[in-house]
Amino acid sequence: MPAAHGAVAIDMMGSDRGPEEIFEGVCLALRQFPDLAPLILVGDGDLLTALLEKHRLEDNSRLSIFHTSQVIEMDDKPVQSLKQKKDASMIRAIELIQAGAASAVLSCGNTGSLMAGSTLKLRPIAGIERPALASIIPSSEGHFVLVDVGANPQSTPLHIAHNALLASVYAQKVLKIPSPRIGLLSIGTEEGKGNELIQKAHEKLKQLSSFIDYIGLIEGFHLFGSGVDVVLCDGFTGNILLKSLESMALYLRKFSRKEFSKNPLRLFGAFCARGAFEALSAKLNAEIYGGAPLLGLNGTVFKAHGSSRARAISHAIHMASDLSRMGLQDEEMALLQQTKSLLK
Amino acid sequence: MPAAHGAVAIDMMGSDRGPEEIFEGVCLALRQFPDLAPLILVGDGDLLTALLEKHRLEDNSRLSIFHTSQVIEMDDKPVQSLKQKKDASMIRAIELIQAGAASAVLSCGNTGSLMAGSTLKLRPIAGIERPALASIIPSSEGHFVLVDVGANPQSTPLHIAHNALLASVYAQKVLKIPSPRIGLLSIGTEEGKGNELIQKAHEKLKQLSSFIDYIGLIEGFHLFGSGVDVVLCDGFTGNILLKSLESMALYLRKFSRKEFSKNPLRLFGAFCARGAFEALSAKLNAEIYGGAPLLGLNGTVFKAHGSSRARAISHAIHMASDLSRMGLQDEEMALLQQTKSLLK
Repeated sequence: MPAAHGAVAIDMMGSDRGPEEIFEGVCLALRQFPDLAPLILVGDGDLLTALLEKHRLEDNSRLSIFHTSQVIEMDDKPVQSLKQKKDASMIRAIELIQAGAASAVLSCGNTGSLMAGSTLKLRPIAGIERPALASIIPSSEGHFVLVDVGANPQSTPLHIAHNALLASVYAQKVLKIPSPRIGLLSIGTEEGKGNELIQKAHEKLKQLSSFIDYIGLIEGFHLFGSGVDVVLCDGFTGNILLKSLESMALYLRKFSRKEFSKNPLRLFGAFCARGAFEALSAKLNAEIYGGAPLLGLNGTVFKAHGSSRARAISHAIHMASDLSRMGLQDEEMALLQQTKSLLK
Repeated sequence: MPAAHGAVAIDMMGSDRGPEEIFEGVCLALRQFPDLAPLILVGDGDLLTALLEKHRLEDNSRLSIFHTSQVIEMDDKPVQSLKQKKDASMIRAIELIQAGAASAVLSCGNTGSLMAGSTLKLRPIAGIERPALASIIPSSEGHFVLVDVGANPQSTPLHIAHNALLASVYAQKVLKIPSPRIGLLSIGTEEGKGNELIQKAHEKLKQLSSFIDYIGLIEGFHLFGSGVDVVLCDGFTGNILLKSLESMALYLRKFSRKEFSKNPLRLFGAFCARGAFEALSAKLNAEIYGGAPLLGLNGTVFKAHGSSRARAISHAIHMASDLSRMGLQDEEMALLQQTKSLLK
């Protein structure tokens, strides 16, 4: 079992931008979040020692190094990578939870390997078959949780019902919403709309109504309103949706920047209204939200984007540190136990 | 067969906002687009006559009224509505194509009924099993076509391959791209990623490479870049995606408006930079793009949002009028014939 207030093990080798970018994120997190858990930097020992020295952090008592000799690449096959790269930074980081030396893992690496490795080594909590990736997305008056964003592209109705329970606890704890409103994403709100998966999941979710606030089928139109706190979908749809929304946000940022710098008057206007841009930019910034925990495991496993910059890494470290202290798993297990007889 | 340069039959009764809003759209279209085809207003005769008189359009030679006594509601079941509401405005409008009196239909009504009615009455073109809704979405350097956005939530690999052919012709004609780059939307770009539907569709699409520019699997991240002109997905995913993107666009507009009007300096800045806002607003405006043709039918059937305002209706009328003159169907049929032996 994970230590209650243990360390965060950071897979230093899994970033598209190299270990230096993650290290920048570590430095930033140390400055931004004084209440951070101890951090174990997992990766090439020589490289990490050099980075510590370069940043004059070799005596920082909150940092330690765990040396590993291998790296899982983005195009490695998940199952193969687990067999062939036993000393990979990602795998060793997960094993630190297993060994009780850490209570959370953060990785920017290969999602499939992280999913397979953590499922194999940490095991899902009792009752859960497959973990789910839960992403937090800003909406009109707060945020909503989108789950699953890609851990399980072959979701079953039972997986979706389980995800509702997991995400309900997650939204309570992280978004501080006492009774999160949960919707099932489909192509219409009438009964019978959608595909077979949706219809069967809808039936299961209705049975859980004494335990979660299931508001029923929702459509894409409802996402950014303020009527739903948890949006359920299968991992295939969720992954496409999350990435598409991020693509649109990025494109709008670029397009706005171009438009506002087209002539001096617009530039002056943009300068006067820069507060609004900062607010918009903060909302649109996928980096801050560009990470997601794998819900449903014995231990906190947090996945950040492969291309995350230091700022995003710092946020992700903070999230992982916080999550590991929240005792999500205990509440999730209690809820799963209570609803076990309903979900057969 | 449809008349080559025939009229556009407009279902006047299918809007969430009532026939008056559609009528406003008709008036706007007459002013905006002098080259418009003749328009047949299909719906309650008394009501439409009164609207014509009110707007002093009773002598306009480009408008005529076709009286019908029934209306298909948004919550009517598609197949039932066809049986029980034979005199519905939507159905009669479709029949005007069947009779050769119109070459296009525009409706804001129930998508399922429009899909079922037009498939039954106009029949798919030779080789096509199910029509597909193709939406045009603005991207970083132009537009892309997203297909299917909801006509066929149970798409098969063959449907997706057919949609590639239909959308390739559509993008050539409407976006004026000689050789549209076509991508299949999935959760990773490596071979073997995605679900069974994606993998089988991918195989079929590769076989079409002498006829279309199939660039392979794409992810959500690629949507708004400038690397793809046609994005293929099943109707379930496409419908959720389109509506979610629209929801995000709407939310961002509201959020920006709020931020820019928070204090006088920001308001002043926004005034100076208003050109940029106009450009952004035009890009973000779902109303202009909020319509989609049903590709693959003998006749032009154009679906606009149920909540479309006059401006969107006007654009949709123009699109329907233009599309019906483009001879899409002939080119689609030729392409289907050429690729027939490859798609078994």
